[in-house]
Amino acid sequence: MLSKGQIKLINSLSQKKYRQKNALFVAEGIKVIKELLNSNFKLERLFSEADIFFTDKNKIQLLEPNELKKITKLTNSQTALALFEIPQEPSKITEDFIVALDGVRDPGNLGTIIRLCDWFGVKQLLCSEDTVDCYNPKVIQATMGSISRVEVVYGNLTDEISKLKMPVYGTFMNGENIYESEISSKGILVLGNEANGISPQIERLATSKISIPQFGENKNTESLNVATATAVLLSEFKRR
Amino acid sequence: MLSKGQIKLINSLSQKKYRQKNALFVAEGIKVIKELLNSNFKLERLFSEADIFFTDKNKIQLLEPNELKKITKLTNSQTALALFEIPQEPSKITEDFIVALDGVRDPGNLGTIIRLCDWFGVKQLLCSEDTVDCYNPKVIQATMGSISRVEVVYGNLTDEISKLKMPVYGTFMNGENIYESEISSKGILVLGNEANGISPQIERLATSKISIPQFGENKNTESLNVATATAVLLSEFKRR
Repeated sequence: MLSKGQIKLINSLSQKKYRQKNALFVAEGIKVIKELLNSNFKLERLFSEADIFFTDKNKIQLLEPNELKKITKLTNSQTALALFEIPQEPSKITEDFIVALDGVRDPGNLGTIIRLCDWFGVKQLLCSEDTVDCYNPKVIQATMGSISRVEVVYGNLTDEISKLKMPVYGTFMNGENIYESEISSKGILVLGNEANGISPQIERLATSKISIPQFGENKNTESLNVATATAVLLSEFKRR
Repeated sequence: MLSKGQIKLINSLSQKKYRQKNALFVAEGIKVIKELLNSNFKLERLFSEADIFFTDKNKIQLLEPNELKKITKLTNSQTALALFEIPQEPSKITEDFIVALDGVRDPGNLGTIIRLCDWFGVKQLLCSEDTVDCYNPKVIQATMGSISRVEVVYGNLTDEISKLKMPVYGTFMNGENIYESEISSKGILVLGNEANGISPQIERLATSKISIPQFGENKNTESLNVATATAVLLSEFKRR
């Protein structure tokens, strides 16, 4: 049985202020939950139709499918929903190659970028304070479990980038052709907001301005989506 | 004024069978509509708050914002919705480098792939009959206008690929590392279904099996999303 308090808590966690207040986030789906159980994230409570998870039995609450439907947003045949703790210790950038996001707002884009970081072996992602919260349920789903392997660090982007003293590769529409650029295996790859790109204060910190050239005779395409641009750029940094 | 018949028609066009019956599709938003007006697509009717489009005045119907709200799914400050004709002539593959999709189901993925084709100068996209319809409103929106510059051809993928007699690059989890593969500037780049990849009958037609290698020590990431994989692969085919 789900208590009224549980339903209220779970629904409230779609909002950032309640995630921060309770230091909890929601993960849905068997694959995502299994990957989080295998990571450093700490489970608070797990709601499932079936006893298929290997974890502390006291934290598992088996529910009837119609009860799970009250809290889940997924429509899978077999569903599960879990609450995990949001880590409270402030984290620090320690990796020598990271991605930094300056104001990415779309949860699907952030989730896709976290998944790309995981694929391309990037272990830390630095986000400006106005980047969408990585514990937003839509972000968690879009990462497909990669949130368990990529550490997302929020902070003042200007301060953090200045402190790191690494090459800063900013992505701009008018930057140098990435295929012809000198790029290093160490540094910070910065991507900007969906509509406005990288902000002027971060632009000033860029040691290189790079871009993905457009092919063919049509030059009307506005820009690549920030997540597909990240895919192309991470491939380019890692292939060399 | 919107007539009841118009509201009914526009709402019905979210379903493929009514799009086929009426040979019409819906495009929303000023940018997307402007790009379609500048293409070979034929306008049937345009509903807008403001007279900002240069086209046959008889086809424009100015509406109050609260009327537009009845038909639009967008929440922009200034909105517009247009009906365009779905081309009825069967089209043929004539380009020497194309992308082919074997059962891509998600409208956002297809829209993103059309936008990527546009960016990378790929003018034709071949889709299996079970790939999501490119005139689905979610696909049209995700293309951001690129649908006006990339021709999408549906057909029996086995027959079409066999007829083309070009190198066939199939994307597989266990394919050869794309960064080390011999690839040509001519051919067919095939991507598969989100869950099941490329089907066995298309796998048999592949002259090369390629894949994007995973970096870092974590090899748990299930796979790249089909749209981000397309981004990496098109970059790789075009940069050489």
